[in-house]
Amino acid sequence: MHAYRTHNCAALTKANVGDSVRLSGWVHNKRDHGGVLFVDLRDHYGITQIVADSDSEALPVLEKLKLESVVTIDGDVKARDAEAVNANLPTGEIEVFARSITVQSRAEELPLIVNSAEDYPEDIRLKYRFVDLRRERIHNNIMLRNKVITSLRRRMTDQGFSEFQTPILGASSPEGARDYLVPSRLHPGKFYALPQAPQMFKQLLMVAGFDRYFQIAPCFRDEDLRADRSPEFYQLDFEMSFVTQEDVFQAIEPVLAGVFEEFANGKTVTPAGEFPRIPYAEAMLKYGTDKPDLRNPIEIADVSSHFEKSGFGIFEKIVGSGGVVRAIPAPGTNEKSRKFFDEMNDWARKEGFSGLGYVTRKQGEFGGPIAKNHGPDNMQRIYDELGLGENDGLFFAAGKEKDAAKLAGLARTRTAENLDLIEQGCFKFCWIVDFPMFEWDEELKKVDFSHNPFSMPQGEMDALENTDPLEIKAWQYDIVCNGYELSSGAIRNHRPDIMYKAFEIAGYSQEEVDANFSGMIEAFKLGAPPHGGSAPGIDRIVMLLADEPNIREVIAFPLNQKAQDLMMGAPSVVSAKQLRDVHIRLSGEALETQKSASDAEKADMNSNAATRDAPPA
Amino acid sequence: MHAYRTHNCAALTKANVGDSVRLSGWVHNKRDHGGVLFVDLRDHYGITQIVADSDSEALPVLEKLKLESVVTIDGDVKARDAEAVNANLPTGEIEVFARSITVQSRAEELPLIVNSAEDYPEDIRLKYRFVDLRRERIHNNIMLRNKVITSLRRRMTDQGFSEFQTPILGASSPEGARDYLVPSRLHPGKFYALPQAPQMFKQLLMVAGFDRYFQIAPCFRDEDLRADRSPEFYQLDFEMSFVTQEDVFQAIEPVLAGVFEEFANGKTVTPAGEFPRIPYAEAMLKYGTDKPDLRNPIEIADVSSHFEKSGFGIFEKIVGSGGVVRAIPAPGTNEKSRKFFDEMNDWARKEGFSGLGYVTRKQGEFGGPIAKNHGPDNMQRIYDELGLGENDGLFFAAGKEKDAAKLAGLARTRTAENLDLIEQGCFKFCWIVDFPMFEWDEELKKVDFSHNPFSMPQGEMDALENTDPLEIKAWQYDIVCNGYELSSGAIRNHRPDIMYKAFEIAGYSQEEVDANFSGMIEAFKLGAPPHGGSAPGIDRIVMLLADEPNIREVIAFPLNQKAQDLMMGAPSVVSAKQLRDVHIRLSGEALETQKSASDAEKADMNSNAATRDAPPA
Repeated sequence: MHAYRTHNCAALTKANVGDSVRLSGWVHNKRDHGGVLFVDLRDHYGITQIVADSDSEALPVLEKLKLESVVTIDGDVKARDAEAVNANLPTGEIEVFARSITVQSRAEELPLIVNSAEDYPEDIRLKYRFVDLRRERIHNNIMLRNKVITSLRRRMTDQGFSEFQTPILGASSPEGARDYLVPSRLHPGKFYALPQAPQMFKQLLMVAGFDRYFQIAPCFRDEDLRADRSPEFYQLDFEMSFVTQEDVFQAIEPVLAGVFEEFANGKTVTPAGEFPRIPYAEAMLKYGTDKPDLRNPIEIADVSSHFEKSGFGIFEKIVGSGGVVRAIPAPGTNEKSRKFFDEMNDWARKEGFSGLGYVTRKQGEFGGPIAKNHGPDNMQRIYDELGLGENDGLFFAAGKEKDAAKLAGLARTRTAENLDLIEQGCFKFCWIVDFPMFEWDEELKKVDFSHNPFSMPQGEMDALENTDPLEIKAWQYDIVCNGYELSSGAIRNHRPDIMYKAFEIAGYSQEEVDANFSGMIEAFKLGAPPHGGSAPGIDRIVMLLADEPNIREVIAFPLNQKAQDLMMGAPSVVSAKQLRDVHIRLSGEALETQKSASDAEKADMNSNAATRDAPPA
Repeated sequence: MHAYRTHNCAALTKANVGDSVRLSGWVHNKRDHGGVLFVDLRDHYGITQIVADSDSEALPVLEKLKLESVVTIDGDVKARDAEAVNANLPTGEIEVFARSITVQSRAEELPLIVNSAEDYPEDIRLKYRFVDLRRERIHNNIMLRNKVITSLRRRMTDQGFSEFQTPILGASSPEGARDYLVPSRLHPGKFYALPQAPQMFKQLLMVAGFDRYFQIAPCFRDEDLRADRSPEFYQLDFEMSFVTQEDVFQAIEPVLAGVFEEFANGKTVTPAGEFPRIPYAEAMLKYGTDKPDLRNPIEIADVSSHFEKSGFGIFEKIVGSGGVVRAIPAPGTNEKSRKFFDEMNDWARKEGFSGLGYVTRKQGEFGGPIAKNHGPDNMQRIYDELGLGENDGLFFAAGKEKDAAKLAGLARTRTAENLDLIEQGCFKFCWIVDFPMFEWDEELKKVDFSHNPFSMPQGEMDALENTDPLEIKAWQYDIVCNGYELSSGAIRNHRPDIMYKAFEIAGYSQEEVDANFSGMIEAFKLGAPPHGGSAPGIDRIVMLLADEPNIREVIAFPLNQKAQDLMMGAPSVVSAKQLRDVHIRLSGEALETQKSASDAEKADMNSNAATRDAPPA
């Protein structure tokens, strides 16, 4: 018989009744029924009920053991009485009568209770993560993460992608977010940086001819933290050669739709091949954002033209001076009180906007000052145009286009939430496409890049030479799910001549471009294929699938919100020799810290390095 | 028709003759046959021959293009003339007559030639890695690496393992190799460290109840570099709960044997389930090393007893004072001159040993001073015992056991190499087991840990309490292939009481243990399963399969031997602000470097960060 188990704790069924078995696991729960002890024995796979009565030598041992001790039980499988059958448990039809017990590990008092859903402060949970991870919800989250990543890998491989590792000890990039630095020992005064993303490497893999690359890529940003942000995160980084934007969509829609369908747990998912492609301008108009949540049925409309001449002077004035009026329907609000509408207006003011106008409607009757001034016939024309009915209210966001769009977008979300209109049980994907290549910089009074200077402009050189720059779109796209941007992506500009021209339009000389981006441009001069890609965030995908709002719930060992590992004691003070080795000294505030840091701080869990499995260096 | 290709460059066969096709790729080669130009068009998948004659508008364009330019060809598939068929090429039966051409990327003069096997200095290759990676051998190596890792993942999943990511921003560990440090911005004076291995995390995953973990884990060591070492490397890190050493072997042998069989390219592989288990003591005796190359048929034997009383006084004296004599057969050396044997002796002296004695034998006749002094009958007894024949020579390594074993091991390898005895075309695996738990420290005159203090001693507490410590073995094992150690591994000591006892034997108090290893021990006090694992080196596995002696040949973007990325310019100087942000200053030598570093150094390829696909932070 195996030293620890003949079966795992989810394996035994009625078919095993009569078998002698050995099980190992954690003492999850104990219930004393007057001389008979029922124990839930738990392992990774499940739970089996153990029974010990006064005939069992296991009884006195189990009675004394604390929960979460680890034991091996030798016993016999018996069928449960009909009334004791637990249909929710795979092993719910049987129990194991303990003949004997071996204690593998005696647990002391626990900092948190495993067999309860009780909430604990995050710092307790992270300090004792190895106990926290035993709890059902977080255990399931981490297993889900594993399955999602395994599935993503399989689906990418099925699409002809190959996974390559790119360096983690990389070069610091002065732009973008803040780098994590790594001082070099061999090169005094120089530093590596952890990658914010393998962007350059994946493009160089295409220049190297690898055609279809992906990586479950660790990325690092030294930014201030919040619930959906971790200093260390993973993205499904990918890049393809000889492709158009459409090819990228066709390759990745089956991967994303597939993995969401696999783990959606009954929720519906936009099918591959049917992801709507929404031009950026349309998204900004209809949803007031380039990250629209399509579960929200409300669509914003521009009603500026209706107010060019209107009894409602404020809107007339706004439209007259180049502003816009956007309308946000609030369907079926005939029963809502004036307070419902006024609170939206108050909210808009609190958010820093000048206010949110509205029209109420009850059985066809318009209400509120805008309707009064604009007149019922004119209102009806708007309602007809928007296809609204006789019990639908309407909010108005007016002002400069950018502000009005933003307010309309926020009001759309808030209205749908208040009215409980957001469709549940579904994942709705879309692509946002046709981002403008350039925009007018109001401050500098010049044309500048709108989003990503390295995307290929639609129409390529011909467009740059012959079109109004503000009309040029880029082959750039975002993938959005339920209002969350999973990733940007682009067909890259792989042509030095087109790149110089694009930068020229934005006011940069060839010399400036060479000075800043020479590396990539020089690479493109040695034979570069057309290529493009994207990089959906893995943690975000798992958060959506696990329905968790906090990224730390889907990472096995996350840093806390202060970027500390409370379990291992990172970051920590290091020895003077370690600093000397890499040619650095502490400065400023750090000197104070060092003075007050006791040596004890270093004697932490991490000092077990000698146990490493790696072959000797 | 697709913008870039209807087929890739390996796809067209005779079945496509007559088709109009579009291909894209790099101009790999051009051959001008007097007005007719033959071009090898290359992409990731293969090569297709393009033909352009004076009727083709592609001809003048192709004539002018430099090699490695990227083009799209529209043309017609034709069958090659019988004498022009290339059986080595999947597309060797056809060629494509170019109707028209689009230049996607015009290559300038190349720093290295892609279509040749010419060797270039490593620094040129690494600075232009994106060109180097187009070359057949390295392209194949990187694809092999991808396939090996994909196969390992699948095989581990098949064995019931789940992959989890462990943190890369970790805690510094004062023991082990040198850490790469990452200064913290939020915690002045404190540092993260990149993991030398996820040892602690994988054990904590077991304590957390995950049962079977693996990870293709990036590991980092700031050590001086050599051919088989990279600062950044990957290991197949794994750990299992409720297992014995035998369970670990049974789980991992199919994975290793399987992946080697899959990519051995005709070489034989030790079958899963048949990996020899060689006790450490036996390995040190028979092979003179704990990393034996079993392709070498020579086995060392201890012949000390034969020399207890011998006419060969040197050996008699060595044996008399507690030393040993080890014999290394040199089979079939009857035709070898005295020089062959003397050179081995010279080599041993150069290596710092006192010398390598030998006996020659020709048609039964012994030769050399040892045989003379020891006498032919006594020699024959040794030969009989070792099963040697009348044309086999014999080397002798004599001295203190440790030295003699080491010399014998080196002589065994050198003899087999000289005699060409090492079996080619095979991968021979073995486990080295039964490592001693403790050893006698000659200097300190005390018992100390022999290898890994955190392995479980065989016999557990009972052995520690009732056995001579120097007799106790550990549940510790190495996996060796063709003389290379792929990994150490162990069943861990998960019991605080046994750990305190083991440390007590090595002379450490409970207080000292708690001070140094409290973290892990405290975790074990909250319910820990018996567990064990290992971590075979991925780069080493790929090196063996690719038959490459240099680790940088199996990494897409390796650092060079000075730990520099010449392509991206890492490590590099960073701005004063970056240093201030993380509360450090340069010191010592680094100050000199900074003074001489020009700003230009920073304007490197890496400055393209703005192109990143990740969603905005």
